[in-house]
Amino acid sequence: MTVRQLPLPSLVDACARLGVPGIGLWREPVRAYGLKAAARLVQAAGLTVTTLCRAGFFTASDSSADNRAAVEEAAALGADTLVLVCGGLPPGSRDLTRARERIADALAELAPYAADHGVRLAIEPLHPMYAADRCAVSTLDQALALAEPFPSTQVGVVVDTYHVWWDDRAPAAVARAGAAGRLHSLQLADWTVPLPAGVLTGRGQLGDGCVDLRAWRRLTDAAGYTGPIEVELFNEDLWARDGAEVIAETVRRYRREVCEHPSPGPRENPAHPSLPPA
Amino acid sequence: MTVRQLPLPSLVDACARLGVPGIGLWREPVRAYGLKAAARLVQAAGLTVTTLCRAGFFTASDSSADNRAAVEEAAALGADTLVLVCGGLPPGSRDLTRARERIADALAELAPYAADHGVRLAIEPLHPMYAADRCAVSTLDQALALAEPFPSTQVGVVVDTYHVWWDDRAPAAVARAGAAGRLHSLQLADWTVPLPAGVLTGRGQLGDGCVDLRAWRRLTDAAGYTGPIEVELFNEDLWARDGAEVIAETVRRYRREVCEHPSPGPRENPAHPSLPPA
Repeated sequence: MTVRQLPLPSLVDACARLGVPGIGLWREPVRAYGLKAAARLVQAAGLTVTTLCRAGFFTASDSSADNRAAVEEAAALGADTLVLVCGGLPPGSRDLTRARERIADALAELAPYAADHGVRLAIEPLHPMYAADRCAVSTLDQALALAEPFPSTQVGVVVDTYHVWWDDRAPAAVARAGAAGRLHSLQLADWTVPLPAGVLTGRGQLGDGCVDLRAWRRLTDAAGYTGPIEVELFNEDLWARDGAEVIAETVRRYRREVCEHPSPGPRENPAHPSLPPA
Repeated sequence: MTVRQLPLPSLVDACARLGVPGIGLWREPVRAYGLKAAARLVQAAGLTVTTLCRAGFFTASDSSADNRAAVEEAAALGADTLVLVCGGLPPGSRDLTRARERIADALAELAPYAADHGVRLAIEPLHPMYAADRCAVSTLDQALALAEPFPSTQVGVVVDTYHVWWDDRAPAAVARAGAAGRLHSLQLADWTVPLPAGVLTGRGQLGDGCVDLRAWRRLTDAAGYTGPIEVELFNEDLWARDGAEVIAETVRRYRREVCEHPSPGPRENPAHPSLPPA
C-alpha cells in the first residue's frame, strides 16, 4: 500500500532490484491481478510474501466467508501471516466491550481454519482514533489478551509503530509478546502532524515524524523478533509520486532511521543492493 | 468554548436563563473582557465558574510564569479547579518518556503555588492522537500517576469522555481517582467520525456519536463524583450557529443523553428551567 500506484509487476521488479527481500501484499490488488499469477510473479522474482493484509472486520455481521477466503489466499501466496483489522463498533452500537467479545468469538471460529491452512493470524491493534469505525482493539495489551486463548502458532499480534508509539505500556507488551512467541509482524510508519481529514492517509515516511523508530527496532530485537520488517505508509503525497522512486526513498530511510549501523558508502545504489538484514 | 461565538455577557445570560448553574471559562475571553469584570459578571448572575481552562504546556521551555498567572486568574474568578493540558513533545524531540518527566517536574513547581491560592490542579489526559503536539499524557492511568505524589486537594485529574472513551482501563482508573479524591472535573463530548483535518474541532454534540455518555455518568457517580459536569464541544458547525440556540440544544441533549431520569414534559422551556441536578 506504500506504493499503491505501482502495478504488481512493477512493485515486484522494484523490490527485487533494490534488494528488498519480501513484500506485504494487500488482497485487492492481488485479486485484481489473479491469485495464482501473483504467487508465481513474486516467487519468480525470488521474493517472499511477508504478510497478507487484511482480514478481520469481525464486528460486521457477515465476515466469516470473506475471512476464510483471506486465509486461503494467504496460503496460496505462501504468506505465513494474515493481518487482522478487527473492526469497530457495529452500526448504532456504543458498546466497545461487546464489540471486543464479538471479535473474540470470531477469532475462535477462524483460528482453527487458519491453522489447517498453515497461516498464522496476527491481530493488529489500531490507534485509538480508529476505535469507533475500524478497530475496537486499540492497544497491544488488548491484542495479546485476545490472542492468548490460542496457541501462539495460531494467533499473535502485529506491532505497528504508527498505532502504538504513544502507549507507555506497549514496550512491556512487546516483550511479553516476544516471550510468548506471538510477535508475528512488525510494521513501521512515522507519526506526523497535522493529521489529514479522516485520519487514514497521514502515515509518515520514516524519519519525517516523531516516532523513535530505532528504539522500536531495539525493543523488537530484544523481544527476539527475527521476522520481516514492513514499511506501511498510507500517504497521499507518496501516492502522487513515482512509485519506484518512493520505494527507493523508503529503502534509504529504512537504512538511515531504523538500522543500528547504517551501511557506509552511498546511501543507495540500485545496481548493487546492500540492504542490511532485517 | 462550546459557544465561543457568544460574548461573555450573552453566555452568562443564556446560562442563567436556561438554569445552567455554572460555566467553565477559558482564559483568552476572560482576559479580553477583563478578569475582575468577568468575575463580577458571573457572580452577579448567580453562576459559579466550574473550571478555568487552561494552563500547562509544561514541555515548552517558558511555561512557568504563564502557569502562575493562570493560577491567579482562577483564584480571582473563584474557580477552584484549573485544567492542565500538559504539552506534547518539545520541537525535534522523539522522547515521550522525557516529556512526561518534564511534566512531573513542572507540576512539582506549580502545585504548591496553586495550593497557596486555593486552586486545585486537574491533569487532563488527552486522546492519544494528540500525544505528539498537545499532550504526552494520554490515559487516566498516566494522569493519576502524575497526580499521586501530591495531596489530592492539590492535584487531580479531568475525565473527558472524548479523550478516554476508547480506553478499557479508564473505568478502573475513574474508580481509583474517585476513591483517592482526585476526580476534579468531568467533561462531556461525543465521538463522531470522520474526524476533521487537524482533529481539533471534531468534538461531537452529546448524542451525535458513539460514546455511551450515560454509562460514563454512572461510572463517575459510582466513583463518588458530585462536582459539576461540563459539556465541552469544539465543533465548527456549532460555532457557525446561533450561540444561545446551541446552549439550549446542549441542555436538551444533556437531559436526554446523560441524565438517568429525563425530566417529563416538554424537552425545553427556557421560562421554567428545570435542569436536573448534576
